[in-house]
Amino acid sequence: MYKLSACSSMSCGISLPPKMILASLRGHKQGNGRCTNVPRNVNLEKLQNNYLFPEISKRELQHLEKYPNAKVISLGIGDTTEPIPEQISLSMANYAHALSTAEGYRGYGAEQGNQVLRKAIAETFYKDVAIKDTEVFVSDGAQCDISRLQLLLGSKVTIAVQDPSFPAYIDSSVIIGQAGDFQDKTGKYQNIEYMQLGPQNNFFPDLTITPRTDIIFFCSPNNPTGHAATRKQLQQLVDFARDNGSIIIFDSAYATYVSDDSPKSIFEIPGAKEVAIEISSFSKFAGFTGVRLGWTVVPEELLFSGGFPVIHDFNRIVCTCFNGASNISQAGGLACLSSEGFQAIRAVIDYYKENARILVDTFASLGLEVYGGVNAPYVWVHFPGSKSWNVFAEILEKTHIITVPGSGFGPGGAEYIRISAFGRRERIIEASWRLEKLFSMGKSPLLTV
Amino acid sequence: MYKLSACSSMSCGISLPPKMILASLRGHKQGNGRCTNVPRNVNLEKLQNNYLFPEISKRELQHLEKYPNAKVISLGIGDTTEPIPEQISLSMANYAHALSTAEGYRGYGAEQGNQVLRKAIAETFYKDVAIKDTEVFVSDGAQCDISRLQLLLGSKVTIAVQDPSFPAYIDSSVIIGQAGDFQDKTGKYQNIEYMQLGPQNNFFPDLTITPRTDIIFFCSPNNPTGHAATRKQLQQLVDFARDNGSIIIFDSAYATYVSDDSPKSIFEIPGAKEVAIEISSFSKFAGFTGVRLGWTVVPEELLFSGGFPVIHDFNRIVCTCFNGASNISQAGGLACLSSEGFQAIRAVIDYYKENARILVDTFASLGLEVYGGVNAPYVWVHFPGSKSWNVFAEILEKTHIITVPGSGFGPGGAEYIRISAFGRRERIIEASWRLEKLFSMGKSPLLTV
Repeated sequence: MYKLSACSSMSCGISLPPKMILASLRGHKQGNGRCTNVPRNVNLEKLQNNYLFPEISKRELQHLEKYPNAKVISLGIGDTTEPIPEQISLSMANYAHALSTAEGYRGYGAEQGNQVLRKAIAETFYKDVAIKDTEVFVSDGAQCDISRLQLLLGSKVTIAVQDPSFPAYIDSSVIIGQAGDFQDKTGKYQNIEYMQLGPQNNFFPDLTITPRTDIIFFCSPNNPTGHAATRKQLQQLVDFARDNGSIIIFDSAYATYVSDDSPKSIFEIPGAKEVAIEISSFSKFAGFTGVRLGWTVVPEELLFSGGFPVIHDFNRIVCTCFNGASNISQAGGLACLSSEGFQAIRAVIDYYKENARILVDTFASLGLEVYGGVNAPYVWVHFPGSKSWNVFAEILEKTHIITVPGSGFGPGGAEYIRISAFGRRERIIEASWRLEKLFSMGKSPLLTV
Repeated sequence: MYKLSACSSMSCGISLPPKMILASLRGHKQGNGRCTNVPRNVNLEKLQNNYLFPEISKRELQHLEKYPNAKVISLGIGDTTEPIPEQISLSMANYAHALSTAEGYRGYGAEQGNQVLRKAIAETFYKDVAIKDTEVFVSDGAQCDISRLQLLLGSKVTIAVQDPSFPAYIDSSVIIGQAGDFQDKTGKYQNIEYMQLGPQNNFFPDLTITPRTDIIFFCSPNNPTGHAATRKQLQQLVDFARDNGSIIIFDSAYATYVSDDSPKSIFEIPGAKEVAIEISSFSKFAGFTGVRLGWTVVPEELLFSGGFPVIHDFNRIVCTCFNGASNISQAGGLACLSSEGFQAIRAVIDYYKENARILVDTFASLGLEVYGGVNAPYVWVHFPGSKSWNVFAEILEKTHIITVPGSGFGPGGAEYIRISAFGRRERIIEASWRLEKLFSMGKSPLLTV
């Protein structure tokens, strides 16, 4: 009675590249099932197979197989390590416990977030720039909101990204259908504008040669380079967006790491409210990477070309595709923004910043070109003429330290590695010592290319 | 220096329908800003303005303005009201509190969910049908996963939905770009297949007249009708999907309310693993509507037409567009699946089911046609010849009870209202009493149409 013929990737797939067939065979039974008649989404076919952090995890596992007794230090994925200040964890614990009482029980909250938390975010981070609580949308993290913003924008818009940049901007763009094919030769997708960043342009794109796009993703303080754009640079960016009628999606997830007078929000720049959305997060600010809490600001002044307010459509996306962040996480977020909570968090941020200083000093003392680490928890080290996966492999092999190869953030990171400053102090010091040993006295071939 | 001309919805919008202009003017300043040159997403333009639950909230507010002393009973939105059993809330409280200790702190978890929780879900709900833990993806709720599944599928697939159905299937389909224009005359979107459900077909679509689509959204026990599809019906559905090479997205969010031998999972049906994905939720099962936790099962056997496993692409979507559910919520989920936790939750479900029984009996005793309420927390009442918004308005006006007009779930609900059985027992009894008073002795015009 079933009309579908049995199939396998060999008999009815054909178009799969050998690597994918191999992956399928390894991970899952294949070839003994029957295919549906539903075609695979062409956008997902375009996505490159090896995404960065799973590949790093695989390399780490292989390393541990080779050196079972190695004391690996992970300065790879930017994951927080320090406990959450107790007044904050207690506020979540108390909220959670109260859910078993008639007085404390809460069901669905507003999709846009608890009103009190929205107000606290507006007052804590945007008081001087007059962002209203109704313009703040609480989320389960900036990465999730990037995809929701892509759902808002749709497949017809053009985008620009910093190169290097956090991979989710490009990957979500490919998934929604904005990008063309990936070009092996350049390491770039067609139809995406890559704005190169490096020491040659003070880590700010040369806007005189940047073509207009509808959307500009811009992260400052930057992941991975650690560079915080100056006020002058951001004013140039806002002017550029206004000249072109573009929308900036400004990722300020690391804003609380800024210690000089670089802007912490795009809305500090005059004219930004008419051209910018800001996404941000409690993850690196309060150690909420696993608790999941973030926010997005969409100003009322931001209008599509037809005059329709972007905030209306984002509200609709949030109501349809999301159902609010966990109310327990939101209780924690509120505690972070009390004056005691904020002060306790500051101490944790300062701890990570001291880690970053140690790492910057280590690389600098070895005569390496080192960037970032001042206004961000990331240190960006240049190995001119090297390939970043080779640098990653050499450091792992000789020091048992996990870093992130810069090419994972785009072709602009090809000669760099990113070092995360998240970690226990003693591990950071140990890592510095191992790196000094590797790089001092010209022992590493990395210094001689 | 700014090249953009100042704009308003009048001067540069033009194409906005009057209702939207009005909404913009009411909600947000407009006409004094400058537009970007970014066009609004055409898919969002297609979405209808008044979505169901915000409209009901508006009506409730208007009612309270008219009757400030009215004791409104809300049997509208299906929101849980009973406290979470304490062993579950305590497990979350303990997990949250431990985040402030070096031993208890956790950063990012796996995007797919905590391995132990995935295993517990597989063993609790899918032991007899041999779903593996690696096929279970933990989420922040079924509604969010519906949108992630739409990102997976893309704009090129065709879909069918039950009519009436939970609005998120259709709305997310419009947002991703699968649907054509909305037809005011029919109340339907073009390019979406509406499978009519009603007493005439025992609330199961006539598959002999249903055209093939790539995707079939199917919810059982059904929201809003409360009908649980029988084993025979679901076997027909699976056979239909296999014959057509379609993928069923089976929403089992209310499965734990089943008390007869209707299947609780689509995977109880032979052959389903090759044609179905299942989404589910802790919301109505454990009172986690505000805690946010759910899951999706994608079997390894499910293949796109080219032979590529759907699970690979869903994994990629989860890793790129999501960052895992809150680890505190996941700790609560795990506690729900312990034998003590599960038993405590059962008692809450039984409480809501007794509410449903009371409501069903009330309507039945009044001679009304009433459906659902046996295997689901929803009661579906037929008012032949009436319009559901009128029934909603009359009940609200005369009894101060909020219901949901069936037409909010699609044209197939035009003559129905949905009553939610979530609520405190005394409120349910009070509601029954008020309804009896309204409908007894032919006092209501609703009974005379």
